[in-house]
Amino acid sequence: MTSSSLDIVAIGDAIVDVIAIAEDAFLEERGFAKGSMRLLSAKEARDLYAAMGPGREISGGSAANSMAGAAALGLNSAFVGQVADDQLGAIFAHDMQSLGVRFQTPPIPGPPPTGRCLILVTPDAQRTMSTFPGASHELTPAALDPELIRSASVTFLEGYLWGPERPRAAMLEAARIAHSAGRTVAFTLSESLCLGNRREGVFGMIEAGTVDILFGNEDEVRHLTGCEGLPDCITALSKHVPTLVITRGAHGAIAVERDYMVEIPAAPVDRIVDTTGAGDLFAAGFIAGRCRGRPLKACLETGSIAAAEVISHFGARPEADLRELAQL
Amino acid sequence: MTSSSLDIVAIGDAIVDVIAIAEDAFLEERGFAKGSMRLLSAKEARDLYAAMGPGREISGGSAANSMAGAAALGLNSAFVGQVADDQLGAIFAHDMQSLGVRFQTPPIPGPPPTGRCLILVTPDAQRTMSTFPGASHELTPAALDPELIRSASVTFLEGYLWGPERPRAAMLEAARIAHSAGRTVAFTLSESLCLGNRREGVFGMIEAGTVDILFGNEDEVRHLTGCEGLPDCITALSKHVPTLVITRGAHGAIAVERDYMVEIPAAPVDRIVDTTGAGDLFAAGFIAGRCRGRPLKACLETGSIAAAEVISHFGARPEADLRELAQL
Repeated sequence: MTSSSLDIVAIGDAIVDVIAIAEDAFLEERGFAKGSMRLLSAKEARDLYAAMGPGREISGGSAANSMAGAAALGLNSAFVGQVADDQLGAIFAHDMQSLGVRFQTPPIPGPPPTGRCLILVTPDAQRTMSTFPGASHELTPAALDPELIRSASVTFLEGYLWGPERPRAAMLEAARIAHSAGRTVAFTLSESLCLGNRREGVFGMIEAGTVDILFGNEDEVRHLTGCEGLPDCITALSKHVPTLVITRGAHGAIAVERDYMVEIPAAPVDRIVDTTGAGDLFAAGFIAGRCRGRPLKACLETGSIAAAEVISHFGARPEADLRELAQL
Repeated sequence: MTSSSLDIVAIGDAIVDVIAIAEDAFLEERGFAKGSMRLLSAKEARDLYAAMGPGREISGGSAANSMAGAAALGLNSAFVGQVADDQLGAIFAHDMQSLGVRFQTPPIPGPPPTGRCLILVTPDAQRTMSTFPGASHELTPAALDPELIRSASVTFLEGYLWGPERPRAAMLEAARIAHSAGRTVAFTLSESLCLGNRREGVFGMIEAGTVDILFGNEDEVRHLTGCEGLPDCITALSKHVPTLVITRGAHGAIAVERDYMVEIPAAPVDRIVDTTGAGDLFAAGFIAGRCRGRPLKACLETGSIAAAEVISHFGARPEADLRELAQL
């Protein structure tokens, strides 16, 4: 293993969020499960957009949000994801680059256009997401720069991008390159991955030793393992994953490394406005702690501080000085 | 004069704002006057965008913001403005229509693309604007629907759009149609209009009796009239304008109708985040009060409440229930 010039490189959806305030009734009429994420066709996205209120557009994407957080925490970060050659693609690229995140995946001509995620935030600050992935799902292994992957201490893979075939192949190839260079592979679960037939594939990938650090929330690890109690989930996963991190919303978070388990309460927040990005920023904070040599509990605390900041405002990317907040 | 089916129709820039947080030093390095608005070429817009931080995109445009406010206050509202057939144009159209503002100006194919305004918000909540007007300045008198203008109690014209020749012609034509139908014409000043040679033309238009309700802030009426003291400004303008409304930021606002003058203090705000849109929303509130038959002082107060809401968050369009706040 040679020394790494980059702290972290992520592969994920390149998405612009369209955030609108919505009443609970709006979700109920459409049968949306609050807090969930579902994929939309182009037509469904047009219809939902026409029905929803005025939006604010803020660059998003789960792993991309994590990289925005990582950069804000002082990590040398890069992102690989597919946009189209259009205005939303230019916005996404600008927002990454202006944060100091290296982002050099060339845009495709399109169609499809750059992906977008229609996020409905209800008065209880919960977010319900409907994603039109667009160009994002056109990512192929050819978009990878092996040298970039080899140069990063951590390769961070996004669960949402595990569904479509070509991006999944790109992520597996990135994991292979990373491991062959002696690097760490992190994977963040997404709800949609952990349900139905798909969970077999994800669990298989984890059993195969692909993942060194696994992030998930309570629901995700339950669905993935099929276990009811959290201790059983931990037993089922931690034998395959050197570092397991489970976020529990207002109940804090847990990290498990073999027989060692630590737990922390959630960081305090004055007013929760929009929970979008909480998990993404938690992962960013945890990895920032890890890259800076903090002990396991302090890594959880750094994650918790980053998550607390992002849920205090609209949008899934940090607005405050995270580095100062996390004393990094 | 027949009864009006529409309360208000506005003609203005159709713009998407790109809002980023900036330090004072960023403005100083570039010689930007804080609080000002300047026009950019496409190249200047690209260069500034590349240098500025990550943005949040929220539909804007001065008179368009006023219409968003008018609709939120329960007025039956319409907007005329030019976007291009691109993603930002679709965002602008969606955001108007989803607020209930009638917006039917067909997009032009482009180039130029839909206009955008790069807004730098400094820690003191001041906004400094750099506008690439794009398609917005391609508005022509042909885009007007005379029946729409005739059907509206108030035709509201945006000072920023007075600069370029064809939009100016469209606004003058709209004023002519409105007056011929016995309607009211409102005009909102913009800083850039009130400086140099241009002020002669604006003052001439006002002297010609084109404007029934004039909105401006203290600086604007000073620059426009060339008078130092506010009483002299009022004297110079009120002889040509039946209703003169002067906003004074934290010092409140004044309205003058012939010999009658009323003054109010500013509505209280917990924390000022971003002053963008304060004047736009003040005008919306004032006109909403007028359309609902409120007395002059109550019109000022309604304006003040709407302005106070919009400066309490990022973006120049209301987020709270203005109708309830203003008890309309």
